[in-house]
Amino acid sequence: MDLFEKLLSDRGPLGQYSKVAHGYFAFPKLEGEIGPHMKFRGKDVLNWSLNNYIGLANHPEVRKADADAAERWGLGYPMGARMMSGETSMHEKLEAELSSFVKKEDTMLMNYGYQGIMSVIDALIDRHDVIVYDSESHACIIDGVRLHMGKRFVYPHNDIAGLEKQLGRATKLAAETGGAILVITEGVFGMSGDMGKLKEIIELKQKFSFRLLVDDAHGFGTMGETGAGVGEAQEAQDGIDLYFSTFAKSMASIGAFVSGEKQVIEFLRYNTRSQVFAKALPMPLVVGALKRLELLRGKPELREKLWVIVKALQSGLRERGFNIGKTQSPVTPVFLSGGPVEAHNLIIDLRENYSIFCSVVIYPVVPKGVILLRLIPTAVHTLADVNRTLDAFDAVSDKLKSGVYAAGALPIMA
Amino acid sequence: MDLFEKLLSDRGPLGQYSKVAHGYFAFPKLEGEIGPHMKFRGKDVLNWSLNNYIGLANHPEVRKADADAAERWGLGYPMGARMMSGETSMHEKLEAELSSFVKKEDTMLMNYGYQGIMSVIDALIDRHDVIVYDSESHACIIDGVRLHMGKRFVYPHNDIAGLEKQLGRATKLAAETGGAILVITEGVFGMSGDMGKLKEIIELKQKFSFRLLVDDAHGFGTMGETGAGVGEAQEAQDGIDLYFSTFAKSMASIGAFVSGEKQVIEFLRYNTRSQVFAKALPMPLVVGALKRLELLRGKPELREKLWVIVKALQSGLRERGFNIGKTQSPVTPVFLSGGPVEAHNLIIDLRENYSIFCSVVIYPVVPKGVILLRLIPTAVHTLADVNRTLDAFDAVSDKLKSGVYAAGALPIMA
Repeated sequence: MDLFEKLLSDRGPLGQYSKVAHGYFAFPKLEGEIGPHMKFRGKDVLNWSLNNYIGLANHPEVRKADADAAERWGLGYPMGARMMSGETSMHEKLEAELSSFVKKEDTMLMNYGYQGIMSVIDALIDRHDVIVYDSESHACIIDGVRLHMGKRFVYPHNDIAGLEKQLGRATKLAAETGGAILVITEGVFGMSGDMGKLKEIIELKQKFSFRLLVDDAHGFGTMGETGAGVGEAQEAQDGIDLYFSTFAKSMASIGAFVSGEKQVIEFLRYNTRSQVFAKALPMPLVVGALKRLELLRGKPELREKLWVIVKALQSGLRERGFNIGKTQSPVTPVFLSGGPVEAHNLIIDLRENYSIFCSVVIYPVVPKGVILLRLIPTAVHTLADVNRTLDAFDAVSDKLKSGVYAAGALPIMA
Repeated sequence: MDLFEKLLSDRGPLGQYSKVAHGYFAFPKLEGEIGPHMKFRGKDVLNWSLNNYIGLANHPEVRKADADAAERWGLGYPMGARMMSGETSMHEKLEAELSSFVKKEDTMLMNYGYQGIMSVIDALIDRHDVIVYDSESHACIIDGVRLHMGKRFVYPHNDIAGLEKQLGRATKLAAETGGAILVITEGVFGMSGDMGKLKEIIELKQKFSFRLLVDDAHGFGTMGETGAGVGEAQEAQDGIDLYFSTFAKSMASIGAFVSGEKQVIEFLRYNTRSQVFAKALPMPLVVGALKRLELLRGKPELREKLWVIVKALQSGLRERGFNIGKTQSPVTPVFLSGGPVEAHNLIIDLRENYSIFCSVVIYPVVPKGVILLRLIPTAVHTLADVNRTLDAFDAVSDKLKSGVYAAGALPIMA
């Protein structure tokens, strides 16, 4: 059988829609200065789909730092993996600043979040060890778990009784294999916006021997008194053995880091394959991350502004009767009922007639009959943006309920 | 058992040397303007350890393009995965330019090479398929293969009879599972510098049904009449079903791409997990890559200069009796005989007394008793650099043979 013929016989859960979706539902272009007001297909839209939580993507100081660093260093320096020829004092400085901020002994900066956490998981465990992880973990965690040759147990999302049961099984198994246990969860879950129950998980250390790795991609910069993340918010940072975050959300960049005790971080520096065998983060991204971190730490008003918008949006939606699930973070899911045709028409209406751009998720990512609209409020949205959105959501929700969207898919205008 | 205790009982093949090696053999800092002459621990060194093949890292036009793009866009734009909110016309433009250059129908630009190829392999195959791959494949390919739930067969490096045997086994197996076969090799092997035998591999398509994925990280920009890589050099580009390269070598940046027939690339756009679930390459890196590609295509004199240096270095080494293996590319390995203490002292001598910086590889990466020094000549080296290096290599090789380096490890001076 030919591989490509086989491949193309099933284009995958998202690929099957590519003919209709491309350029509109999938791979849409948001143009102009990055922020809440951008252009989509030439038209101004109010945009709720960027994880630019505290507004750093277009902050004048960030823009200046990025420009200055690229001018000074170019995007080519350094070349090579950090271990071979890619190490610089600025990489080390950023690591030290991150350690101090998240209150851990040491930090390894990484060239990209996805491959970073995959390889961290891979480096930490061998085939005798057991992984126990939350069922709603992000794809990058799942792919890290997939590299594991040994056993893994998944527990239902945030179900502590389920976790305890799996830890019981894992403990038995680890006793047989001579292995150890790694528990993986997230700080804030990116789809539903609820927090991992870190405090409860950490309490289980009194009954079971395990280490805890937390991916706080959406919590870093948004949660906790100083923005140091969900560990801080839950007063649970000490119980997190490895604290991971990407720069792709609040930090409005690329790259990632993992923080923990000194010896373990040193071990990871020498054994994390995607870092040992791939190029270091380019210097302007390191210098730019230093500036972003400085603002994230030094300007709490950015996070305070974020939360003003979050609260206005989420309480407004709740007051108008929308189901926003269990969110405890800026991530704001709005759960509606309808099939793919209704989702299609609702989004076209929202974008074309209300000029509102947000992400939509349907089956198979959520159950059949659910339309999930995901709003990401940021510090650079305004209360006027919130009110306009609440009114628009009222209008499209009414149309959805009255069946207006059910009468066959609208074409996307050229 | 405690995971961290277990972990730290064996610090890994490289980590076991960290106390002695850190900052000198591992994680050395190369400072100053990026190129052949940089500072190492405050001292000028002649540097042969950057994959800056055609000298783009510090090319004035590249530096200007990087600076201008970072000033115009910042490093934050776009945010989100391309499928969700990270698509731009410049990403598409770069894809079109790459397709035209490598003579393939379409191209998918990727946010990073390591996770890019891992997820491409993962997207292409399911558990019924069989992977057949070269034994010297890079870590990123191995990690992609490790994600595979089905069978894989490795063949001895560049051993076509061995490949044929494994294809026979794979074909039998695929007939049973209803799967298909993917063969993976490299254009230029980064350690030994020899080319994958693409022509011979492609000829085997007459006997077996398989698709061929080639990682041409070191060949792109260095090999072939126009620099389009090893497929061009061997007149075998048409037989390569998926042509992959990173921007981390000749392009002196980060990011990667994969090129092939339109439908397959479209499939990959919708099914490559590290791309669907992670942020797009930031705009300045895209704009910077367009400039780099323009120079790579438009200034063949850069590649010609590279090859002048390559030939002078490689023929000089051969004339002086050095074993440089089977290299057919700029990658220049020098194989010496000695143990870890001798390697340690030789490198200290080379760096401190001859001011020459190159990478060194010892057991377990190469067999016991082998010291592999790897030189990467570039277009921005000079013939004077080559001659100085040949003389230094003569000198340290004589000392190695005479046993000077065997008398106990020298301390690294503060």
